[in-house]
Amino acid sequence: MADSRLTILGCGSAKPTKTTSPSGQLVDLHDKRFLVDCGEGVLLTMQRLGIRTGRLYSIFISHLHGDHCFGLIGLLTTLSMLKRTQPMHIYAQPDLQKLLQPLLDYHCADRQYDIVFHPINPRKHEVIYRDRTVSVETIPLKHGVPTCGFLFCETRRVKKEDGSFDHVTRKKYAYCSDTQYSEKIVPVIDGVETLYHESTFLQSMEERSKEVKHSTAADAAKIAALAHAGKLILGHYSARVEDHSLFLDEAKPIFENTILAEENDVIEL
Amino acid sequence: MADSRLTILGCGSAKPTKTTSPSGQLVDLHDKRFLVDCGEGVLLTMQRLGIRTGRLYSIFISHLHGDHCFGLIGLLTTLSMLKRTQPMHIYAQPDLQKLLQPLLDYHCADRQYDIVFHPINPRKHEVIYRDRTVSVETIPLKHGVPTCGFLFCETRRVKKEDGSFDHVTRKKYAYCSDTQYSEKIVPVIDGVETLYHESTFLQSMEERSKEVKHSTAADAAKIAALAHAGKLILGHYSARVEDHSLFLDEAKPIFENTILAEENDVIEL
Repeated sequence: MADSRLTILGCGSAKPTKTTSPSGQLVDLHDKRFLVDCGEGVLLTMQRLGIRTGRLYSIFISHLHGDHCFGLIGLLTTLSMLKRTQPMHIYAQPDLQKLLQPLLDYHCADRQYDIVFHPINPRKHEVIYRDRTVSVETIPLKHGVPTCGFLFCETRRVKKEDGSFDHVTRKKYAYCSDTQYSEKIVPVIDGVETLYHESTFLQSMEERSKEVKHSTAADAAKIAALAHAGKLILGHYSARVEDHSLFLDEAKPIFENTILAEENDVIEL
Repeated sequence: MADSRLTILGCGSAKPTKTTSPSGQLVDLHDKRFLVDCGEGVLLTMQRLGIRTGRLYSIFISHLHGDHCFGLIGLLTTLSMLKRTQPMHIYAQPDLQKLLQPLLDYHCADRQYDIVFHPINPRKHEVIYRDRTVSVETIPLKHGVPTCGFLFCETRRVKKEDGSFDHVTRKKYAYCSDTQYSEKIVPVIDGVETLYHESTFLQSMEERSKEVKHSTAADAAKIAALAHAGKLILGHYSARVEDHSLFLDEAKPIFENTILAEENDVIEL
């Protein structure tokens, strides 16, 4: 997966801070570009980084808390101003369309491209997207509202002895945000090369973490270890923790190959 | 107006660029803080600058193009997370409430503060806000959709000979965005100390400017001269113009005391 990389557009939690914006990341798998979550500012960060939207065809939204979807209307309106003609596919819970449609009708009625909503069920583990080289599966998570992560699988066609073809998974990337500690996800993400797992709180804030159904850095590391992940990326930091290295300090003793997501980071997958 | 200043939170036009975000600015008049327009990213910029929202009671929205209002839902939701209890007053065209209400009901139903919508008529010049030391008037503008600017007047109580009090205007700040060249606004803003006038295009793009009902830098300077403004601030730059000093070059020969708005700028009023 030489050309495959992750670009962190936002890795803060709901309250933005001096250094973090709400959630959003680009998953580039060879010639495919996927946007995962779209909090406020995601478009602005893409523009600052000079990232083009032409190859972006699909958007995946984990849940409908504002810090994961408030940037959508600005993005979709801007694509219209950029004279986009190719369809945009949005994979999200049905409520998103209900909320977005009136805004699109008002602000973006003259767009020259189709927006195709694909309703997903966050409680079910299933394949929601598949093309020749990539498939995407939902990862049911445990959060205050229905939420799912996404498992990106890069696949390769392999010729079988009888001459037919099989799709073999080469590498996997799992996005798990937002969620409290949940071992139920382990079988779904087992063997994943790269795992992004939310790490909103530190150990000292464990009680708060359970209350609002988020994870600590140690929770994320435990899941990475149980799932035999290759690498763990922490993110979705609480606004209360200015020094993100504290998250790393708590995760590394449990899962050594852990790194911090920081905005504008580009991470090889 | 020693403590009075303007903070530029966003001064780009609809398409964000590497250096500009959509419109938004804070008007601080003594102990009062007003937000004018709220494009995507305005909250993020406030957080980056360490600006507190506690003293912000009133928001004025010039028109309902997305680059002037898409940041509202994120701001209002965040205020709820910050446990705000004091009411927020929003002065805008009635359509804004229609668009925002479903989002507020879904994302921000448990907020502990009231949002009070004050419908305004952008076609009429009238006082829409008045307290002991500040009044705000609408400035009807000419744009693709109904739009008004806002005239902030700092007033002072003066004791009259008969012992009663009168309110005398001390200083004025006019926000005029978005608009094409319109001399109709001159009587309304005449004698204003500081004028922010949109300057989306350069002279070479004049045709485009008229087509989309925006102004050139020269248009802004002509209005400033006709209105005997003290100072002109340019903003709302087209994404096509990277070097903002070109706007200054075209405005200064017509109105010398012109400056450029740039994001994060704090300008004394």
